[in-house]
Amino acid sequence: MKSRLAVALAALFATSTALADEGMWTYDNFPSAAVEKKYGARIDGAWLDRVRQSTVRLAGCTASFVSGEGLILTNHHCIAACLAENSNKEKSLLEDGFVARDRDAEIKCPTQVADVLVAMDNVTTKVEAATRGLDDRAANDARKKTLTELEQGCEKTTGNKCQSVALYNGGQYFLYQYKRYTDIRLVFAPEAGIAAFGGDPDNFQFPRWCLDMGLLRAYENGKPVQPAQHLKMKFAGPKAGEFVLVSGHPGSTDRLLTVAQLQQLRESDLPPALLRSNELRGRYIQFAKTSDSARRIVEDPLTGLENGIKVRRKQLDALLDENMMAQKRREETELRARVRADKELAKMGDPWAEIEKANAIARNLDLELGYLEGGAGFNSRYFRYARTLLRGTAEREKANTERLREYTDAALPRIRQQLAAPTPIYPELEKLTLSFGFERMREWLGPDHPTVRQLLSKDSPDTLAESLVSKTKLNDPAVRLALWSGGAAAVAASDDPFVQLARSIDAEARALRKRYEDEVEAPISAAEEKIARARFKLYGTAVYPDATFTLRLNYGTVQGWVEKGRPVEPFTRLETAFARATGQPPFRIPDSWQRVRDSLDMQVPVNLSTTSDIVGGNSGSPLLDARGDVVGLMFDGNIHSISGAYWFDTAKNRAIAVHPAIMREALDKVYGAKDLLRELGGS
Amino acid sequence: MKSRLAVALAALFATSTALADEGMWTYDNFPSAAVEKKYGARIDGAWLDRVRQSTVRLAGCTASFVSGEGLILTNHHCIAACLAENSNKEKSLLEDGFVARDRDAEIKCPTQVADVLVAMDNVTTKVEAATRGLDDRAANDARKKTLTELEQGCEKTTGNKCQSVALYNGGQYFLYQYKRYTDIRLVFAPEAGIAAFGGDPDNFQFPRWCLDMGLLRAYENGKPVQPAQHLKMKFAGPKAGEFVLVSGHPGSTDRLLTVAQLQQLRESDLPPALLRSNELRGRYIQFAKTSDSARRIVEDPLTGLENGIKVRRKQLDALLDENMMAQKRREETELRARVRADKELAKMGDPWAEIEKANAIARNLDLELGYLEGGAGFNSRYFRYARTLLRGTAEREKANTERLREYTDAALPRIRQQLAAPTPIYPELEKLTLSFGFERMREWLGPDHPTVRQLLSKDSPDTLAESLVSKTKLNDPAVRLALWSGGAAAVAASDDPFVQLARSIDAEARALRKRYEDEVEAPISAAEEKIARARFKLYGTAVYPDATFTLRLNYGTVQGWVEKGRPVEPFTRLETAFARATGQPPFRIPDSWQRVRDSLDMQVPVNLSTTSDIVGGNSGSPLLDARGDVVGLMFDGNIHSISGAYWFDTAKNRAIAVHPAIMREALDKVYGAKDLLRELGGS
Repeated sequence: MKSRLAVALAALFATSTALADEGMWTYDNFPSAAVEKKYGARIDGAWLDRVRQSTVRLAGCTASFVSGEGLILTNHHCIAACLAENSNKEKSLLEDGFVARDRDAEIKCPTQVADVLVAMDNVTTKVEAATRGLDDRAANDARKKTLTELEQGCEKTTGNKCQSVALYNGGQYFLYQYKRYTDIRLVFAPEAGIAAFGGDPDNFQFPRWCLDMGLLRAYENGKPVQPAQHLKMKFAGPKAGEFVLVSGHPGSTDRLLTVAQLQQLRESDLPPALLRSNELRGRYIQFAKTSDSARRIVEDPLTGLENGIKVRRKQLDALLDENMMAQKRREETELRARVRADKELAKMGDPWAEIEKANAIARNLDLELGYLEGGAGFNSRYFRYARTLLRGTAEREKANTERLREYTDAALPRIRQQLAAPTPIYPELEKLTLSFGFERMREWLGPDHPTVRQLLSKDSPDTLAESLVSKTKLNDPAVRLALWSGGAAAVAASDDPFVQLARSIDAEARALRKRYEDEVEAPISAAEEKIARARFKLYGTAVYPDATFTLRLNYGTVQGWVEKGRPVEPFTRLETAFARATGQPPFRIPDSWQRVRDSLDMQVPVNLSTTSDIVGGNSGSPLLDARGDVVGLMFDGNIHSISGAYWFDTAKNRAIAVHPAIMREALDKVYGAKDLLRELGGS
Repeated sequence: MKSRLAVALAALFATSTALADEGMWTYDNFPSAAVEKKYGARIDGAWLDRVRQSTVRLAGCTASFVSGEGLILTNHHCIAACLAENSNKEKSLLEDGFVARDRDAEIKCPTQVADVLVAMDNVTTKVEAATRGLDDRAANDARKKTLTELEQGCEKTTGNKCQSVALYNGGQYFLYQYKRYTDIRLVFAPEAGIAAFGGDPDNFQFPRWCLDMGLLRAYENGKPVQPAQHLKMKFAGPKAGEFVLVSGHPGSTDRLLTVAQLQQLRESDLPPALLRSNELRGRYIQFAKTSDSARRIVEDPLTGLENGIKVRRKQLDALLDENMMAQKRREETELRARVRADKELAKMGDPWAEIEKANAIARNLDLELGYLEGGAGFNSRYFRYARTLLRGTAEREKANTERLREYTDAALPRIRQQLAAPTPIYPELEKLTLSFGFERMREWLGPDHPTVRQLLSKDSPDTLAESLVSKTKLNDPAVRLALWSGGAAAVAASDDPFVQLARSIDAEARALRKRYEDEVEAPISAAEEKIARARFKLYGTAVYPDATFTLRLNYGTVQGWVEKGRPVEPFTRLETAFARATGQPPFRIPDSWQRVRDSLDMQVPVNLSTTSDIVGGNSGSPLLDARGDVVGLMFDGNIHSISGAYWFDTAKNRAIAVHPAIMREALDKVYGAKDLLRELGGS
């Protein structure tokens, strides 16, 4: 039986793993043998250890150590928060860029942390033991409790940051240990005009011309960190067709979802989210036209929003693509038939039907949950502070394992860091997003929903937002920290309008969340675990797990593709960027470049495309050659890469990197950052 | 064979026509016998003639003559254009309302016309004769030419407005004759605050409290018209459960579309339209916050936009409803099987497959067509004027039957009226919508699309919009009329930037349209005609045609429904409106009502719901009792009514009317319009 299955398996995955360079592999399960056979490259244990220890995780992004003195290379768009936090209404580092002329000029990123993965422990058997024999709801609670205990024990023992990780939708559980750096400083950022040349219109497009790079430095005890390992830049970059790898943290994929789950995304989740985001986009854009300072303060949130819109829109297109859905149906039908035919597996019942049942409940809860517990209704940084203060101080009084997961002991230092950070908050923007949230809450929940009536009985969305924002004191880090230190009693005594607002809806919001966890999350987790076990029994680890913002390694080649019958070359050159510039944002090349235009090598490669299987979260990942040297800096995918959320389209899915040669050209000739270039080994 | 088919037919439509009061019936095919059997009401020829001659068609709406002196009753939202055209930045008739104290105070609606249907001729055989034996493309051209000729001949002979009408998706062709009134004046409008109490949040909701009424008067030769027939108001209104009818012009339904066409709507048409509209909504709303005058000038377009968003959003929901789609699939499978089983019909091949083929072409053309030929790209009144001038003067030089259909001789007087009308245009709003259109054109067609490159090679969307709007002279009716009179030569000599813009993209836009007509419209028309012929052969006219903004009559009863297990009563009362008011728009009751609050009868019914099968275009339709007296004024449907585009959901689809009692209360006590009330027979 086993060998027949293996044959069938080989056939089933022939197109995906054997032929295509597909897969976001964990470091403990990288297909080195297959790679060596196909490309002759030896990716051995030492190679993996070195690259793993050089790879850095940022909030939502990847980066890498590129010098022995803690220099970190990542994307410009990955340090946007740091740039925005060091900007104000009058001066935007996003727009203007930043070059630290020496170490003293490096400025702190108030909320940035940087993690390096130092150990991975498989704890699947411990989780299984804790949940065995329990019903869905109890198992869901027990699983969370066990993982919290494991994290807590690990942090105590090692002093590292410990995080539990579910792989294969619950088929495996791991405990990952990170060395965490919390003093991260800004070293270099080009202007947004060249970092994101082409802006939203060119986002997820290729050919492309973006210097989407930024440099940070990790400090410890006031001194630059000397990392255990770092990568070497290879400024010449790779050749067309060359074998390359990407080390990084792909954020999230949904390739193992059932067909019913994909349909839920297509019909219930993506469309309303897109409608909301598009209206907010319109509000941001129109707001930006009211003044220069309005334009500056809205730039960072607008960029993020537009990126999200493009992703979701193309995800929706992918889910409406009958070819893909037909393949998903075939695969699922096949798997379900195998499960039924397997005496042992057949006992697990029909997890696919269980998911559909839970989905039906989700469809009834989603709207209220999104508005009252999610971010759709109270769309405000003040509100998020208030909720964090209210819930954090309340949860802190409970046993660690009994808390909402975002308030476990492990999470508290980061919360404190964020409350303490003197990040600018713009009242005009708060009013805009709050009013928008209230107005849509009223539209989607209806004017007669109890919470809506409570909020808007005498107010309009605008007057309520105005009143809240004008009266709060939560823009002051000292006020936030006093409440945080004062604990539940201090928060209960607060008459800050946002604290009052968070309090007034807390019971209802928590109840919704609990219902969702019990009636949707728990049965879906249980069903997904069953499907994952079936997959393991039938296919083993010859497949890779969905992305979970944990460290992965993938491989591919430098390649273009064929678009509507026409080949797209894998490299772009600087001269085309100048030819394409209109003089108006987002197609305006900054003055710093215009000034030295004549001295620039117009043939220098700017961006390149590869077949690497990456996704959001991989931004800032080093593109590596077979030796493990940096031959590029991943920053985007082409438009077809967005369907990578659900499957890997070998023919068209391409990743996009900044070429190292343009980094050298820019640091040298445009920004005169000779010391940095020297530190990078570039001169 | 025939009798067996009749039996099958009865079974097939048992749930739709026999049990449900469903159907938008043409006046020549109203099921009077069935109605008499079920309700005992006699809807005979005299009844039909009287009501038909009293029913008025406005642009996009319905109305009715309600006095012997040309008084016309319709919705407030149907006269919004007239109110906006008589407003300016400082003063909004939409917001403030209007009461003409005497005939002299009645003010002209510059672009309004009012049509009354006076004759209907079946010309199906003429069209069939003209297209017989031709291929799809030639048949499409021949059909258009024949219909233009018929219209032209009819107008010459009768002096009436003649329009061809396709019923049953091309199963029947008619020539409709209208008596047209072009001097329409504004008599009465309440404030938007009470006409649309609850605004967008309450739109398509019930219970509801809106005085969505307005009064116009038709003039001829400077004197009020004495219409051939008019309706009598019955201010007491109908009883719960009472048999009622609606006469009006439902705009458009898609109940006869094939499953492939419905899927096309769901996947390719609705989502991008919704995304665009939602962003524009955000831009409008944010713009409205910049000043009082901005709020005033954006109110009318925003209301229309939000209405469209709600409609499309719920249409999308309906199309994602598997129950409905399953029924559509069953019906189609049944029909296709019957066609295959019928020797004669089987010869027509597979029109369903032909539609799918044409749809695939449409998916490739839609985007460019929408941006360059449709309204998505050049979203501006100035541009529309410019295109009308450019194309109208060019087309006028061709033979009538060779022109684009919107420029036939029959259309020219209306074009001239619109060019001549001194309607206010707000440059700020023009810039907003133009910039939005350019920005999205660049996003969706890409920065490298030739037209996008041509437009934005040195400009941003904002700078281009600014430059166009600041330089145009098309805001002056005299300038527009001079170009119109001057003809193609004058237009060719014009250096107005909008005329230049329209000219620069005209060849490309026309070519796209031609391709669309030949490769999409033509085969779909041909296929739809085949399906329509099959339906006729199998089912006869026991079914009703899709809505086409032509006169229809339907019947039903005054009824609420059951919402999530709870009954919704069919009448609302004034006291609940006051209880629900928040003091903030859109839940603010105007001062005029607050001032006389104590004198008002709080038990007076405000709105009511019926089972009438209506759709957009029926707005302003009289709700009639069995005698043909006005017992309500249709203005909306409940949220479930939006799925009426595709099917009639008997259990939940409800129409909403203004109750005549609140009209009397308002005219009498709030607006002191005693003369009007007397003219309406109300005192």
